[in-house]
Amino acid sequence: MKTEFADLKEMHDYAWRLIIRGIVDKKSPARHPTFGTNGLLGMPELRTVVLRYADQKAANLEVHTDVESKKVEELKFNPNVGIHIWFPTNKLQVRIKAISEIKIGSGVTEQWEKVPTGSRVSYGTLPTPGTVIQTPFAYEKPAEFERFCLIKINIEEIDLTHLGTRHTRALYEKKTKWCGSWLAP
Amino acid sequence: MKTEFADLKEMHDYAWRLIIRGIVDKKSPARHPTFGTNGLLGMPELRTVVLRYADQKAANLEVHTDVESKKVEELKFNPNVGIHIWFPTNKLQVRIKAISEIKIGSGVTEQWEKVPTGSRVSYGTLPTPGTVIQTPFAYEKPAEFERFCLIKINIEEIDLTHLGTRHTRALYEKKTKWCGSWLAP
Repeated sequence: MKTEFADLKEMHDYAWRLIIRGIVDKKSPARHPTFGTNGLLGMPELRTVVLRYADQKAANLEVHTDVESKKVEELKFNPNVGIHIWFPTNKLQVRIKAISEIKIGSGVTEQWEKVPTGSRVSYGTLPTPGTVIQTPFAYEKPAEFERFCLIKINIEEIDLTHLGTRHTRALYEKKTKWCGSWLAP
Repeated sequence: MKTEFADLKEMHDYAWRLIIRGIVDKKSPARHPTFGTNGLLGMPELRTVVLRYADQKAANLEVHTDVESKKVEELKFNPNVGIHIWFPTNKLQVRIKAISEIKIGSGVTEQWEKVPTGSRVSYGTLPTPGTVIQTPFAYEKPAEFERFCLIKINIEEIDLTHLGTRHTRALYEKKTKWCGSWLAP
């Protein structure tokens, strides 16, 4: 555990290692980031997603969703995304700003084939997610490849806050090649 | 632990009990909700906050912050707030939409007096939070009552998703007196 950061590159690499762990470690907080969009009526919309892929060099993340979910509708209108992860053990907050891309169909066949059969029912709920139903279980969950959607999250900014012995905060931006700068926490 | 919900009122009350626990239990996920705003440049902004108060009957929450923080600037422009809490043990996701009120000065003296002396340094950082600094510890943390700010979060909607034996999702709205309706999850 780091008690304090005094090196910008070290802090950036440390955060990425924690994020990447979320792809394989179901107990990592990075497994379940909070995914924020601007709602269609100007209300912030936040929900849990499952992290499927993370790449420091390309500075992107991937999550899967149902193409009929509300968040896809919101992203078509405004592709900006906020991602939030709090690592309690490491006392590190990761805040990401990104621009999303929606991918469906033939471009995501490979990813679909890796989704376990039992998990494929997350893509295809009838009626579509968020529809009012009369009883709690008045829905079906067929697996539908046509509803499988990959959201590619192209990162623009990473804002890190570490609550160590003393607090440190640093901002890393794509436009300055992630070299980073310290901020007052 | 609930395996499944089939009663709207029971699910609503259950979620509120978990939320309220966050006021006193530092290990509860409700202690540290994610607080979402629409950023000034149209980018969703998410960060951790500490829950200070929660009231089911009045349907509101309270958090404290530095009045010079970016989130206050954002809320002055657009008071809409999204709150997100994921309770991993209970497999319950709480998504809240709310309208915020900013309170400072004589109206929050009582709350300020309850803030432990050691915690008051969260209100007064110089330079103000988010300012670029040349070295990681080039800041001071005096305690300043003038910078202490209470954000009152007046809830409009609560959207609950429970990943039980079967999934259930329900939406509760102030305008329908929180009676709730089931949604396809």
